Amino acid sequence: MRAAVLHAPGDVRVEQRPDPTIEQPTDAVIRLAATCVCGSDLWPYRGIEAVAGPTPMGHEYVGVVEEVGSAVTMLQPGQFVVGSFFASDNTCEICRAGYQSRCVHAEPMGAIGTQAEYARVPLADGTLVATPDTPSDDLVPGLLAASDVLGTGWFAAVAAEAGPGRTVAVVGDGAVGLLGVLAARQLGAERIVVFSRHADRQALAREFGATDVVTTRGDEGVAELEELTGGLGAHSVIEAVGTQESMMQAIRATRPGGHVGYVGVAHDVALPGDELFFSGVHLHGGPAPVRRFLPELIELITTRAIDPGRVFDLELPLEQAAEGYRAMDERRAIKTLLRP
Amino acid sequence: MRAAVLHAPGDVRVEQRPDPTIEQPTDAVIRLAATCVCGSDLWPYRGIEAVAGPTPMGHEYVGVVEEVGSAVTMLQPGQFVVGSFFASDNTCEICRAGYQSRCVHAEPMGAIGTQAEYARVPLADGTLVATPDTPSDDLVPGLLAASDVLGTGWFAAVAAEAGPGRTVAVVGDGAVGLLGVLAARQLGAERIVVFSRHADRQALAREFGATDVVTTRGDEGVAELEELTGGLGAHSVIEAVGTQESMMQAIRATRPGGHVGYVGVAHDVALPGDELFFSGVHLHGGPAPVRRFLPELIELITTRAIDPGRVFDLELPLEQAAEGYRAMDERRAIKTLLRP
Repeated sequence: MRAAVLHAPGDVRVEQRPDPTIEQPTDAVIRLAATCVCGSDLWPYRGIEAVAGPTPMGHEYVGVVEEVGSAVTMLQPGQFVVGSFFASDNTCEICRAGYQSRCVHAEPMGAIGTQAEYARVPLADGTLVATPDTPSDDLVPGLLAASDVLGTGWFAAVAAEAGPGRTVAVVGDGAVGLLGVLAARQLGAERIVVFSRHADRQALAREFGATDVVTTRGDEGVAELEELTGGLGAHSVIEAVGTQESMMQAIRATRPGGHVGYVGVAHDVALPGDELFFSGVHLHGGPAPVRRFLPELIELITTRAIDPGRVFDLELPLEQAAEGYRAMDERRAIKTLLRP
Repeated sequence: MRAAVLHAPGDVRVEQRPDPTIEQPTDAVIRLAATCVCGSDLWPYRGIEAVAGPTPMGHEYVGVVEEVGSAVTMLQPGQFVVGSFFASDNTCEICRAGYQSRCVHAEPMGAIGTQAEYARVPLADGTLVATPDTPSDDLVPGLLAASDVLGTGWFAAVAAEAGPGRTVAVVGDGAVGLLGVLAARQLGAERIVVFSRHADRQALAREFGATDVVTTRGDEGVAELEELTGGLGAHSVIEAVGTQESMMQAIRATRPGGHVGYVGVAHDVALPGDELFFSGVHLHGGPAPVRRFLPELIELITTRAIDPGRVFDLELPLEQAAEGYRAMDERRAIKTLLRP
């Protein structure tokens, strides 16, 4: 099959790789209907995370079940399925508490690579959620978003306790931040303030439900947010970047007793204990347990209540994955969808 | 009046200070029935926090209202009252959300100093809670504990979401940690594991409701806790120390999706963002909003449902405050009660 492989920073190639097969009785093999490039794929692409030799890329996926292992009971070939970037058994105590990304048997799909024609999905019964019917083609981008960026933005909004009567601020105007806006709106937030300096992203944020845009950032952005909130700060802050600056901006933008939901993968972050202590905020985040939200998100998408697929502003054939990475790296695209 | 003043590390003196008076119409002046030495008083006593000249000490207090300002409507002279270490208006948006220690008008009682015969209490209506009657003398230590260490341990247990079906671990066997055990028990926790290497503290922890004692700490302690919890870690962890080691122990002892309630005042702590991210825990803490819990705690104490005063294992006249500090510093006492 054809698959995207990162050879070195900036060097993504689509090349021949072995077709995946059932390795464990709990596996499924799916044929990808669509996949995409994640903001987190840019860390190794930019050389900020080390690349140890040729690495299959991608962890977001929707597709059709081709084959299932002998122990798979809830899925049949031909079903259209959505999965998360961590395979999970969905039965262990951690999964049942809603933290499937930390399942005791979790396997990262990124190690398998879903920017490809086919993918093996471990723990298929626990990982994959089938759509009610085969979705029409225009729903595919939204379902693909559910696989990671929507599920992650949704988790951030839930972790930040976005809801009725709440002012929610969003740090980060990438796909996850923008879908955090959408999630906060769906969860009933009263006011949604997005930090963004890019006109196209501001426009999409407003379409998704943002009520205010703050174009400054860091402490200047926090001061502007405080002016909007009677000096108190937001009740709920979504952090979707993962840098020291964005984390401190999120913490400082939150009122005492408020909630920070952080989902930007932390890079070189060290939180000062004394400032965190006296901030009095709640802090929760990490790799989103997307599986927890998939049934609800699939329903919202297939009934057309939400249209998260709008974050894909570039669609390319898988063969052009390299251009898909470049466009995101250069901020010409918010998010690139790849069609195998 | 007589009052304890810290002149330099290790140098606490009880000396003459001006009697407090009503300065603002919202003030009250109380005559202290009892006060005490806090673990946090030991930071400047040990020279870990700088001491800028002679400093009045103490922020825990119960006593009798002597005089109230003209704007005080809910208290009368003669009432027995309990207050928290932050004066708060109890009416602002932050207070109403339950974060009185971060009231928009908060004033730290530590800057006033309650290791004294009398104290001025700002924002008296919002800060002080009267007991139903003048309590009998044996209830005074418990009510004094409510003023800080019980209220703080209680907040930590609430922040850690201790409750039915939960395994709670407690890092720190000082007064706050021990009362965190008591709080977790009251909140219905199924299992309470205390980290402690001191036989007297272990014994009190067991009286307060601890079911297990782990005598190791750091990563070794975490490994032992994991063995007790099927490899998963605790649902809820109370952190009551405030060092890098204790914070990391608390985070590592918590299962993914679990809750850390941290109340040890952070000293030289920097939380590594990547480890925190992948831990998937909830983190909440800071200066406890003790005022939120005072009505409930006063009822539990005056009806003798709980006896938090047991953490005071040394009682001295105020004049011997210096010995009270020494005994805590040398770990001869868990907590010293001072009678003015």
